[in-house]
Amino acid sequence: MTVRLTQASAPLMQTIAVRDEFGAQREIAIPAERALTVFVDKRELVTLMTLGAAPELLVLGYLRNQRLVDGVGQIESVTVDWEVQAAAVATYGGVERFEEKTAKRVVTTGCGQGTVFGDMMADLDRIVLPPPTEPGARLSQATLYGLLDAVRRQESTYKSAGSVHGCALFRQDELLMFVEDVGRHNAIDTIAGWMWLHGVEGGDKIFYTTGRLTSEMVIKSAQMGVPVIVSRSGITQMGYEVARQLGLALFGRATNRHFICYTGFERFDAQPEPPRPAP
Amino acid sequence: MTVRLTQASAPLMQTIAVRDEFGAQREIAIPAERALTVFVDKRELVTLMTLGAAPELLVLGYLRNQRLVDGVGQIESVTVDWEVQAAAVATYGGVERFEEKTAKRVVTTGCGQGTVFGDMMADLDRIVLPPPTEPGARLSQATLYGLLDAVRRQESTYKSAGSVHGCALFRQDELLMFVEDVGRHNAIDTIAGWMWLHGVEGGDKIFYTTGRLTSEMVIKSAQMGVPVIVSRSGITQMGYEVARQLGLALFGRATNRHFICYTGFERFDAQPEPPRPAP
Repeated sequence: MTVRLTQASAPLMQTIAVRDEFGAQREIAIPAERALTVFVDKRELVTLMTLGAAPELLVLGYLRNQRLVDGVGQIESVTVDWEVQAAAVATYGGVERFEEKTAKRVVTTGCGQGTVFGDMMADLDRIVLPPPTEPGARLSQATLYGLLDAVRRQESTYKSAGSVHGCALFRQDELLMFVEDVGRHNAIDTIAGWMWLHGVEGGDKIFYTTGRLTSEMVIKSAQMGVPVIVSRSGITQMGYEVARQLGLALFGRATNRHFICYTGFERFDAQPEPPRPAP
Repeated sequence: MTVRLTQASAPLMQTIAVRDEFGAQREIAIPAERALTVFVDKRELVTLMTLGAAPELLVLGYLRNQRLVDGVGQIESVTVDWEVQAAAVATYGGVERFEEKTAKRVVTTGCGQGTVFGDMMADLDRIVLPPPTEPGARLSQATLYGLLDAVRRQESTYKSAGSVHGCALFRQDELLMFVEDVGRHNAIDTIAGWMWLHGVEGGDKIFYTTGRLTSEMVIKSAQMGVPVIVSRSGITQMGYEVARQLGLALFGRATNRHFICYTGFERFDAQPEPPRPAP
């Protein structure tokens, strides 16, 4: 049983004329931002503001991370039509308790999908991540560097136009999936959709994000069973606390050969850099 | 008639022990992130994830920008209690059509308050910004530099802990209000709350934000009547298009003596930098 998906595409960038501090007029690329209204069995659910790189996977991941649908097998099709800026989701059996699940709203610190239906924190106790002794659920400093290098080499809208967040899924330093969106939550949801569609488990995976490690990013990662997150940015207190509670390893400020390990030292095989020579 | 506000305070930073690429253990500060559930006349409205720097103003600005309440005069009090992570809003006459106004959700690209009730774009046509000929509704390159310098000199959680967005309100290069939050929408909403509370008009003001110029940021600024926005970050296509439509001046990538003017050239008095000497 497979989900039928359209492959809707739309331009991801636009060129505009700007002026700079020298008074010069020049052209730059900026990323797209467009509205996508999601209908589930013809009922309007939400409007997402997105870059538009992978709208079908975004919708799948949104349904998953909002826990509106229990399994991808319940979804018959996702049909995206940019002409009408709409995504139509058809399910086999309807969504149980639709009203109840969409009633409570939490506006989070996330860029992008700032709304989590239901109680975001409620199910934290049920999450069990693989132990640090599992080889796939830990990483070495060399692997971390390899992962960062793979991100650096990735072609991206960010390189051309900036103003988007990237997110990637790794198995150790092997890049499995990379996606960008105007909001970092859209990006992680798209990855979640891809994992769901292909039946990919999270236990031996690593998430990379350019965005900050706020509570919701950590929770979303944990809900997908991913025990390690690497970010180019920093962290907030609640992201830190949730990760500690769950035994998740968090790395931030990670670029080139620099990083901070905030939590989950037990998942990390340090191969320390030699100290910098005195100047 | 004044609004009664508590002055709830809570720590904005926490110190945690981390490890770095040298294998060294050290202490760093990280910003707080806490839930604040807003009740309006005892009805639960939303849970905001916030730094907690100015929760009463945040709640006021949220009500304003979501257009749940028409005027600040309708609000009797905002009572924040961090013990129970709640903000209780009391109005004089209740909120008209509460259910209807809170029914539609748009999840935007914004960090932070990603939900806009009602049709975000619906009222754009009604917004009229002051013409570029108004001295307060335009700025010179020197003023822009002065503004950026004032931001640079501001003491901030960002400097100590990173991972927060700042937002400021200026009259030319005079800093009137500065606030930080874990989400950039919280920060702009807090400014909106401050303006509402003190009856400050936007027509001769300039918004500064560290965040990106997405559609919702531009719309929020325009709804407050502010004709110029300056950002340390970049822009998205919809932010650009909304600003063009409204005649708003947008400056991005603005730090030190660098910037890009995306739209609203007619509000800008360029004093171009001399070209860089050939190397």
